[in-house]
Amino acid sequence: MPSTYRVETFPVATPAASAVFITVLSQGPLTRVELARRTGLSSAAVTKAVRPLIEAGYVIETEDDGVRASVGRPANPVQVDGGRALFIGVKVTGDEVIAVLTDLCCRIRTARHAPFTTQRPADVIGLITALTEELIAEAQGLGVAVQGVGVAVSGDVDRSAGVVHYSPFLGWRDIALAELVSAATKLPVTVDNDVRALTIAEQWFGGGVGCANFAVVTVGAGIGCGLVVDGRVVSGSHGVAGEIGHLPIDPQGPVCHCGNTGCVEAIASDSAILRRIREDTGRPVADSAEALQLAHAGTAGAREAYARAGEAIGRAIGAVVNLLGPERVIISGEGLAAYDLFAEHIRDAFGAAAFGAAARCEVTTRPLPFEEWARGAAAAAIQTFIGSEPR
Amino acid sequence: MPSTYRVETFPVATPAASAVFITVLSQGPLTRVELARRTGLSSAAVTKAVRPLIEAGYVIETEDDGVRASVGRPANPVQVDGGRALFIGVKVTGDEVIAVLTDLCCRIRTARHAPFTTQRPADVIGLITALTEELIAEAQGLGVAVQGVGVAVSGDVDRSAGVVHYSPFLGWRDIALAELVSAATKLPVTVDNDVRALTIAEQWFGGGVGCANFAVVTVGAGIGCGLVVDGRVVSGSHGVAGEIGHLPIDPQGPVCHCGNTGCVEAIASDSAILRRIREDTGRPVADSAEALQLAHAGTAGAREAYARAGEAIGRAIGAVVNLLGPERVIISGEGLAAYDLFAEHIRDAFGAAAFGAAARCEVTTRPLPFEEWARGAAAAAIQTFIGSEPR
Repeated sequence: MPSTYRVETFPVATPAASAVFITVLSQGPLTRVELARRTGLSSAAVTKAVRPLIEAGYVIETEDDGVRASVGRPANPVQVDGGRALFIGVKVTGDEVIAVLTDLCCRIRTARHAPFTTQRPADVIGLITALTEELIAEAQGLGVAVQGVGVAVSGDVDRSAGVVHYSPFLGWRDIALAELVSAATKLPVTVDNDVRALTIAEQWFGGGVGCANFAVVTVGAGIGCGLVVDGRVVSGSHGVAGEIGHLPIDPQGPVCHCGNTGCVEAIASDSAILRRIREDTGRPVADSAEALQLAHAGTAGAREAYARAGEAIGRAIGAVVNLLGPERVIISGEGLAAYDLFAEHIRDAFGAAAFGAAARCEVTTRPLPFEEWARGAAAAAIQTFIGSEPR
Repeated sequence: MPSTYRVETFPVATPAASAVFITVLSQGPLTRVELARRTGLSSAAVTKAVRPLIEAGYVIETEDDGVRASVGRPANPVQVDGGRALFIGVKVTGDEVIAVLTDLCCRIRTARHAPFTTQRPADVIGLITALTEELIAEAQGLGVAVQGVGVAVSGDVDRSAGVVHYSPFLGWRDIALAELVSAATKLPVTVDNDVRALTIAEQWFGGGVGCANFAVVTVGAGIGCGLVVDGRVVSGSHGVAGEIGHLPIDPQGPVCHCGNTGCVEAIASDSAILRRIREDTGRPVADSAEALQLAHAGTAGAREAYARAGEAIGRAIGAVVNLLGPERVIISGEGLAAYDLFAEHIRDAFGAAAFGAAARCEVTTRPLPFEEWARGAAAAAIQTFIGSEPR
């Protein structure tokens, strides 16, 4: 059923107020004094920004912790009331729709999966709206309104227009996804590239909290990358950014599906690893699970394929680090299942490639199942709701 | 002689006022209506920001162009009065100090060069202060105060601390350059990495005006890169960023001075090209001028070295474009002297590497002699003066 609640207007009018809310959201509970320190605003500006948020119920004072303000300003830490509003995040893979209902703090309340066999836009969109409506009904049962829907799709996605220009995994071109889902659900819909959405969630609620510069590198069917530079998710002037999978790292490397030679993805994607194992071992390896088994059993050709993939990923991370100098690189994606097979090669290749102080960048891993990607889509919807869209 | 003028306080108190001034500075003359459009501020906010700048003489109304404001707001375009304040920019190369006197619009009034033979910090700093004092005297002759000095040095420079951590070309380590030059000149001194300083000048006064995302790639003795993402010059969390020269692009490539294999700089720097030509032709080629001559005379080994350099630069630009999606890449540096020899190879390699819409990035060249790099240092000083330092 479509939403019967009216979408509310979020009471934040200035960039300063927005900065205050985002800081409370991602780092709270925090006292106003600490909020002033972290946002670089005056205490008066913080107090002024917090007041309407408390009045509207989005921010609450936490319990008195015994500290009394000597100058009359409230000393209690403030935090976001996650239950004040709900959001829906949807991730579309090549064969499945995953939808989550989250609260305003992007905590997952419910997750639903629905596989599909045809990638026809109308069918997949039908599935997206069906799952969304189920979650809207669930939210109504909780007595809290859903304030927005986010949908994350891999490929070239224009968030401001709400259009999927090209999604190779789905074979979609120029689908006005936001408009179509919004027409069915009567809710504001934010469409974004899936890695970018995941990066927003990591920035506000995950491994990037407190980092002005970090990268999320996803390994698996493709090799993707979300970049945060100076506190903002990079989108690029033409909608393309973070294409770490297409960094040219080896002129003698295999030809990539993009047409270029020696791309990271042509060496380190699941299908590239499979192809190499088939060639080197002569075995008709069916899928990544079988490839992993072979490598874990010590088959030389299989181990070598993972080693070369690890090297390529490490060199690519070296390139990101030398260009942008992030504090942290978070490696994730379904390819993490093979992490023990390429961890050492990633580390060595990164160490060799990182220039000077850039090597101080921390490289970590973080398993992020597809529910987390759907949660990223919810984070994009939260961003829209609080009026903090990227420009 | 040290400055006898008191350094003024620039009348900009808020981020909005700063955005207004920078827009007038880099894109003026502009009407207040157009300023409001470009900054995204209200007309009232623009008028409020402009008033104190006019009162202090930094901004002036241009001649009445016949347009009358119907709602009572002044309709005349405003522009920065360049002659209101002067700045000094200094670029230190491996064997020369170049100093320029610029106005507030970063237009060069005078340029001075002084070669040096010893790179001892005390000697070079003595030369920097001597040139600076000559230019201060010249400014006094013009009756305008110098409000700041910028010094640009290649290598790992911590702008906020004013310290050159490591400059390989000069062999300097941990030199408190800002403090030393400031003690001698009695002026605020801003020290920055030379490519970053050049990028600031390009952003505000050069080939990057109006671009939210662009890159400056410098080719020559080293291969450097300044990056502007979402309107800000990238500095990195550990002081390292834009190290395009150390992107790993060929596992079979030559060993780089940084210790890694197949860096762009190991293939495309002046010395890498020279080394390759000597190896391939067996001739004791003395310098880049001779190498250029050989290539222009059609010597196969020499032409090949430039072709490989062009390919490496093109692939590196492809990497930047795939990660960051800039609108424009500006190629500059003393290596442009060989541009006819590698232009085609840059273009082809970039075209092959650029992914999807990222290929729409415009790749241009712009000769920027060392005076322009010194001007970049002046731009960094202007940034400090107007209170718009990077965070």
